[in-house]
Amino acid sequence: MNKHNYFMQQAIDLAKLGKGHTFPNPAVGCVIVKNNEIISTGFHECYGGYHAEKNAILNAKESLTGASLYVNLEPCAHFGKQPPCCNLIVESKLSKVFYSSIDPNPQVASQGVEYLEKHGVKTYGNILAKKAFELNEAFFYHTITGKPLVAAKWAQSIDGKIFTYTKESKWITGEKSRQYVHELRNNHQAIMVGANTLNADNPQLNVRMVANAGNPIKIIVSSTGNINLHSRIFNDNNNIIIGTTEKIPSKIEAELKTKNCQLIKTTAHNNQVNLEELLIELGKLGIISVFIEGGAELLKSFILQNLINKAFVFIAPTLISGNNNSLINENIFAELKNTPKYILKDTQIFDNDILIEYLAPTYNQWKDLCLAELLKKSVV
Amino acid sequence: MNKHNYFMQQAIDLAKLGKGHTFPNPAVGCVIVKNNEIISTGFHECYGGYHAEKNAILNAKESLTGASLYVNLEPCAHFGKQPPCCNLIVESKLSKVFYSSIDPNPQVASQGVEYLEKHGVKTYGNILAKKAFELNEAFFYHTITGKPLVAAKWAQSIDGKIFTYTKESKWITGEKSRQYVHELRNNHQAIMVGANTLNADNPQLNVRMVANAGNPIKIIVSSTGNINLHSRIFNDNNNIIIGTTEKIPSKIEAELKTKNCQLIKTTAHNNQVNLEELLIELGKLGIISVFIEGGAELLKSFILQNLINKAFVFIAPTLISGNNNSLINENIFAELKNTPKYILKDTQIFDNDILIEYLAPTYNQWKDLCLAELLKKSVV
Repeated sequence: MNKHNYFMQQAIDLAKLGKGHTFPNPAVGCVIVKNNEIISTGFHECYGGYHAEKNAILNAKESLTGASLYVNLEPCAHFGKQPPCCNLIVESKLSKVFYSSIDPNPQVASQGVEYLEKHGVKTYGNILAKKAFELNEAFFYHTITGKPLVAAKWAQSIDGKIFTYTKESKWITGEKSRQYVHELRNNHQAIMVGANTLNADNPQLNVRMVANAGNPIKIIVSSTGNINLHSRIFNDNNNIIIGTTEKIPSKIEAELKTKNCQLIKTTAHNNQVNLEELLIELGKLGIISVFIEGGAELLKSFILQNLINKAFVFIAPTLISGNNNSLINENIFAELKNTPKYILKDTQIFDNDILIEYLAPTYNQWKDLCLAELLKKSVV
Repeated sequence: MNKHNYFMQQAIDLAKLGKGHTFPNPAVGCVIVKNNEIISTGFHECYGGYHAEKNAILNAKESLTGASLYVNLEPCAHFGKQPPCCNLIVESKLSKVFYSSIDPNPQVASQGVEYLEKHGVKTYGNILAKKAFELNEAFFYHTITGKPLVAAKWAQSIDGKIFTYTKESKWITGEKSRQYVHELRNNHQAIMVGANTLNADNPQLNVRMVANAGNPIKIIVSSTGNINLHSRIFNDNNNIIIGTTEKIPSKIEAELKTKNCQLIKTTAHNNQVNLEELLIELGKLGIISVFIEGGAELLKSFILQNLINKAFVFIAPTLISGNNNSLINENIFAELKNTPKYILKDTQIFDNDILIEYLAPTYNQWKDLCLAELLKKSVV
């Protein structure tokens, strides 16, 4: 690994410390290097807080004149929640900026780099660009398409059963798998479940067993508003969104509002919430990623409407047997050529469980094209 | 890796060249080392042929006096198809023998080592013992238990479907997976299918797309003898075993015998072939490993009777959907605590397919105990 990759890897590792707290912002880390030594570091700790570059500059204990800065995203040149980092970099007399890729926002892309170059700071892009892109794929996806990245998650036996014929499903997978689900929750801005799952399981839908965990938005989908208002998720002062239709009774709607829930009413799609519409509205609210945990009906709808970008499938080392206990029990696809196909992206082992991460081919293609485009635009 | 492990790895790699040809013998390789250089190599090329040690000794172009021999199994001290290797080692004036583990056969175990030591050859055991054990696990299992190692294989979608609701199953997995199935076939002494699969698919059940492939025994299971005698497997002068019951019509039996088939008649178990009995008989015939490829009914019987030692599950990146198209469609297990559990042993990726290798817990335990016992008995 050459030294630039090494320092950028440090920046990326720092960025990860903010995971779960920066949404809808990306996770960004920064190291400042002088005479081949890291003299200061920083990362974007939470949404609304200082950017990584500013934290690294403020943390420095010595003069930054002539130093190099490594950051996993092009420094901003525009006023957002914070004044632009580029000004600060120039004022601090840093001489070089190494970055992974330009900012994907068409309104700001390359402006940071141009500003820096104009003010005498040399810039070098494409440093660990793919890794940096993967780290913030939902940010890139949402910035460019306006839609949240949608990940489906389910646990099953080898033979694809998600519960026994007596509906027992606690627990198909082992403890380590279930613990990792909390990591996955923390990597997404919002967790989504159907109202039936909410009413039946009364889940907390928060992140536990993760150090410095964030607090994902909870999204409940219910076309009719049949939601148990005594569910645990309403206990805390939580950030809850209800995806519903005009069918929701006004009394329920009013009650949900007193519980600080935000309602999104879509048109009806086969008597159900129009999921595509819901995603677009969520994107408009600045939600960059949604993690769908169930139930089977909601997952099935997303899958069959080709609305998922990726799937996390946990497979437990058992054969449950039975009928009507798979994800899609209807005889939908007669021919193999018509079944939905995915790209195998990654696997992880948790004791005897395996987690397989699949990507939708369209999303996989989008990623490749997007990354190629970003690389093309970055100054090397 | 120390030098002994290095040389033993060479022996193991050589052993693999005989895979598929040595059954029921183990795959054994041998290297002879003098002044830290390999001066000769050999391996057991086929059943009935010279042992690895003899081949290595015969291949040598110089004096072996004082040289060291590395072999992945204790050299034999008894007359089998070949005179004992130990005599030859002593005669060749080799001074040291490094071996992976002793021979598991209770009648011969440690006798090779004892003979060598008595004749002035220093012996050192436990060199890459686990790797050598894994290479020949079926040989160890059969030698000790008398039963063949039983591996089940099937291909399915993520959601555990083995065909579409219209019974389409060609092909669920991709080309690379299907090619690897031939490697797996070549690693087993016999391939087993049910008669329904034979009659419906007319498979060749041979090893293709593998260099220097062996010719596994074909085993057809049919309680009633309803076997299409025009199937392709009868075309060649093949080694075929029919597992059946007394229900087989004498006319079919006679016809099968004219086709050089060997019949094993078991008692009936729920009107089916008694699979446990069949395995015992196969073990008596010297069959050390059986690879079961289908159909679903046969696989299901083996699984539900806990008769499989391992399972190779190919998972294609698709969701087939449907009912009555999983491996076990009956509602058998009401509670999760009663479902059969497996140990995740290994995974391999073939394009977007994944192959997961599972072990039955009892077999996994047997392996651990057996290896521990072998290690204890080997001179270090």
